[in-house]
Amino acid sequence: MCNYLKNTWYVAAWSEEVTEAALLGRKILDIPVVLYRDNAGEVVALTDRCPHRFAPLSMGKIVNGCVECPYHGLRFNGSGACVHNPHGDGRIPDRAKVISYPVAEKHLAIWIWMGDPAAADPASIPEFEFMEAEDYYIATGSMQVEGNYMLEVDNILDLSHIEFVHPIFSSPAVSRAEVTHEIDGETVWSKRDMLGDDTPPDFIREVFNVPEGPLDRWLHVHWQAPAYMALYAGGVAAGKAFEEGIVSRQAHWFTPETATSTHYFYAMTEPKANGPHMAEVVQQSIQALYGPFKNEDAPIIEAQQRNIGDEDFMAMKPIILNVDAAGMAARKIVDKKIQAESK
Amino acid sequence: MCNYLKNTWYVAAWSEEVTEAALLGRKILDIPVVLYRDNAGEVVALTDRCPHRFAPLSMGKIVNGCVECPYHGLRFNGSGACVHNPHGDGRIPDRAKVISYPVAEKHLAIWIWMGDPAAADPASIPEFEFMEAEDYYIATGSMQVEGNYMLEVDNILDLSHIEFVHPIFSSPAVSRAEVTHEIDGETVWSKRDMLGDDTPPDFIREVFNVPEGPLDRWLHVHWQAPAYMALYAGGVAAGKAFEEGIVSRQAHWFTPETATSTHYFYAMTEPKANGPHMAEVVQQSIQALYGPFKNEDAPIIEAQQRNIGDEDFMAMKPIILNVDAAGMAARKIVDKKIQAESK
Amino acid sequence: MCNYLKNTWYVAAWSEEVTEAALLGRKILDIPVVLYRDNAGEVVALTDRCPHRFAPLSMGKIVNGCVECPYHGLRFNGSGACVHNPHGDGRIPDRAKVISYPVAEKHLAIWIWMGDPAAADPASIPEFEFMEAEDYYIATGSMQVEGNYMLEVDNILDLSHIEFVHPIFSSPAVSRAEVTHEIDGETVWSKRDMLGDDTPPDFIREVFNVPEGPLDRWLHVHWQAPAYMALYAGGVAAGKAFEEGIVSRQAHWFTPETATSTHYFYAMTEPKANGPHMAEVVQQSIQALYGPFKNEDAPIIEAQQRNIGDEDFMAMKPIILNVDAAGMAARKIVDKKIQAESK
Repeated sequence: MCNYLKNTWYVAAWSEEVTEAALLGRKILDIPVVLYRDNAGEVVALTDRCPHRFAPLSMGKIVNGCVECPYHGLRFNGSGACVHNPHGDGRIPDRAKVISYPVAEKHLAIWIWMGDPAAADPASIPEFEFMEAEDYYIATGSMQVEGNYMLEVDNILDLSHIEFVHPIFSSPAVSRAEVTHEIDGETVWSKRDMLGDDTPPDFIREVFNVPEGPLDRWLHVHWQAPAYMALYAGGVAAGKAFEEGIVSRQAHWFTPETATSTHYFYAMTEPKANGPHMAEVVQQSIQALYGPFKNEDAPIIEAQQRNIGDEDFMAMKPIILNVDAAGMAARKIVDKKIQAESK
Repeated sequence: MCNYLKNTWYVAAWSEEVTEAALLGRKILDIPVVLYRDNAGEVVALTDRCPHRFAPLSMGKIVNGCVECPYHGLRFNGSGACVHNPHGDGRIPDRAKVISYPVAEKHLAIWIWMGDPAAADPASIPEFEFMEAEDYYIATGSMQVEGNYMLEVDNILDLSHIEFVHPIFSSPAVSRAEVTHEIDGETVWSKRDMLGDDTPPDFIREVFNVPEGPLDRWLHVHWQAPAYMALYAGGVAAGKAFEEGIVSRQAHWFTPETATSTHYFYAMTEPKANGPHMAEVVQQSIQALYGPFKNEDAPIIEAQQRNIGDEDFMAMKPIILNVDAAGMAARKIVDKKIQAESK
Repeated sequence: MCNYLKNTWYVAAWSEEVTEAALLGRKILDIPVVLYRDNAGEVVALTDRCPHRFAPLSMGKIVNGCVECPYHGLRFNGSGACVHNPHGDGRIPDRAKVISYPVAEKHLAIWIWMGDPAAADPASIPEFEFMEAEDYYIATGSMQVEGNYMLEVDNILDLSHIEFVHPIFSSPAVSRAEVTHEIDGETVWSKRDMLGDDTPPDFIREVFNVPEGPLDRWLHVHWQAPAYMALYAGGVAAGKAFEEGIVSRQAHWFTPETATSTHYFYAMTEPKANGPHMAEVVQQSIQALYGPFKNEDAPIIEAQQRNIGDEDFMAMKPIILNVDAAGMAARKIVDKKIQAESK
């Protein structure tokens, strides 16, 4: 069992995954959900289980902006109400309804609210300025990982694993660089400034356009509960101001599928102001980063989960290193929020 | 956990599946059973677990009408008694026996009684007049479905799912036709008379030999506890008496393997009186119906089961439509019988 | 759940499986263990779960005789102490350690002690004179079996299953021969002397170099707790002293992986004194015996386990034949030792 934070927005899907043409079934916080768009293009998210015989609605079809159960043709509208019973006198039983989850579209994603609907305020969806398509080229990806979502949060907030898990990004300057963190209200920053790198990998030089001489590069991650992260990867000729450098802005967002599996949504972005060739750069970036995610991070996280099994991570009393400060702060904030909900 | 009706006959296999040449292992009501024929051709059904080291007897062989354990050669006769210990002085321990389940052959099937053997009366095996090979051509099939057997009963008793799950059988006249039910003692009828069908599918016209003009067609299902159904699919030129029409008679029989899986036995039949070409018709029918069973019904039932998980179906408080009346009546009768057994 | 004997040596691997070049992860008594050799070639066995984030150390690498965690580069030495924290000030938390299991090398194998380390005395590793490479040609093999290790012990101690499970080794003389057993302190002998065999299989004649005339052959198994067996397969022209015959000496050693799975280590040996061609004979033997192990014994044992499920074997009240005497004696000794440990 896993206690999830309920009164918060989770990413259910990328916007382009949800259409008027097809139903998308996806388990979120252990609950089967079906997603689609109604005739007005508005996203609908309903419990993916007909209250009649419990067939998954996602096996059915979209009819007039409603979802029709594959088994007996009951239709449910966007509010979750049964609006059509094709049988007998067509009377609709009082209890013929499914939960309709509040949803909102923002930052190219569908956000879903699994908690008290009265508390669902789209204004509380986190802001990611670089996820605005007007100003940025954005390439998106997603992945299923067989590990608890907080192991994923640990992974991104923890900038110390680079030289061990992703050696191609490394250099002695990386290993020398300290990992620091800052708690900013209910958000957490994790930072690693790798300064005066004399021997960065060639492709890193290329990305930051510093063909020779020492390079200052940095990774700054900003976390918001429960599992939203912005990652800023920057570089500049050593000694210059960071502001003069090139910064790649990434989104890393995690949604619990179950206690031991996670929907991972990620995006690479570049400012349109930097020129139209950036449209291609973000596509290259997202392809280039798929390998490390899939072949280096995911295997570790899934192996951690196998070693943890059904136990509670903190109950197993992990030892805490200074590099865990950001991740531990994030866990503490999430736990506090979950406890506040249970009151 | 699933409470099964014990004192009743279940179909263990089609007769032709059980031979003198080979052992057949099959789990029934959660119990491993081995089936074979002795020298006289009589069917034997024993617990498929040697009392010595618990090896499955079905991995052994048939020797002189006995089953020989694959591991140490203990032999058990049709009554379940160990009759041969090839080791040492050959003494047979008192407890060296397995349960021998009452069996009977009828309607081309092997029927097994998992309850109190004293109560096993072959006369109580349900009667299916069209399953008599003397008068009918009969084609049989079977399938494993990962769903509780009562979901299968619901499926066949419920004649309202046709236009949603099996659209090729449908037409507006089908959708207009009401589903009715009758309770007849401890049996249940479910009926759908689809009258004046102006636009039946072509192959339906062919089956019922009504090449043009409106067609009256009907589906009548008769259920007996726990999971035996006869399905009568008839058709005739509209307005004529049903008796003048053509009727296809089908058997749909379900045996619980576990709480969440089912052995499905089905048969298509045609009267020999209708001519020798009917021998081929039943073969075509059974092949034609395999597709809808396997690709349309089974995926829904298995998806229902996944959504239900280990919970009790009724405890999940499904909403009840009028089309569920037959299925609900059947569930009520089965539950009453199970409760009567537990007293 | 399975109660294992803890204060005893188990075979963790064949010596050649564990090197200075690669980490070997293996679950033993439900505990993940990582095995490798340090710079001095000494074998190290540690819990295969970093105390920091619970990643498996076996996914990491060997650095200076230490194992480096794949995730954050913590290094643990052979005693299980963390000796290197590459992050921040490099301070090593007090609890940064893993269990180091006592190990010893003997008989071409790595022996591991999962119990109280203070009690681990390499002198208590069982003696197998024919497993000394100085005097014997030795061919080794291993196999994973999905069955409890005591089902494996039963299997080897039980010499009565030959004619049923391994018919190619059989003949009427085998079936006539009685199985006897002797309890020798805390060890058990199981014996089957098959005398005057007029019709042994041809390859058996060849093995024992008795091309014609009746053959005396025998199988003697010696068991030591918890699961170490020496099997002596001998043959000689009928009537001659056993001492004049040819004897093949085999090791059959079992290590519990979990309650329902086992690491099976086996070896075929021949005295070097019998000539250099014996080097090839042991290779042929081990290949020849792989088939019966894998295709005849393992399927039965795995099917037993499926029929037993999670239940306790003895709690299922198996019937006991005289041929089970050796196996039952072994179980009694193991149970007694386990009970002694729990006091």
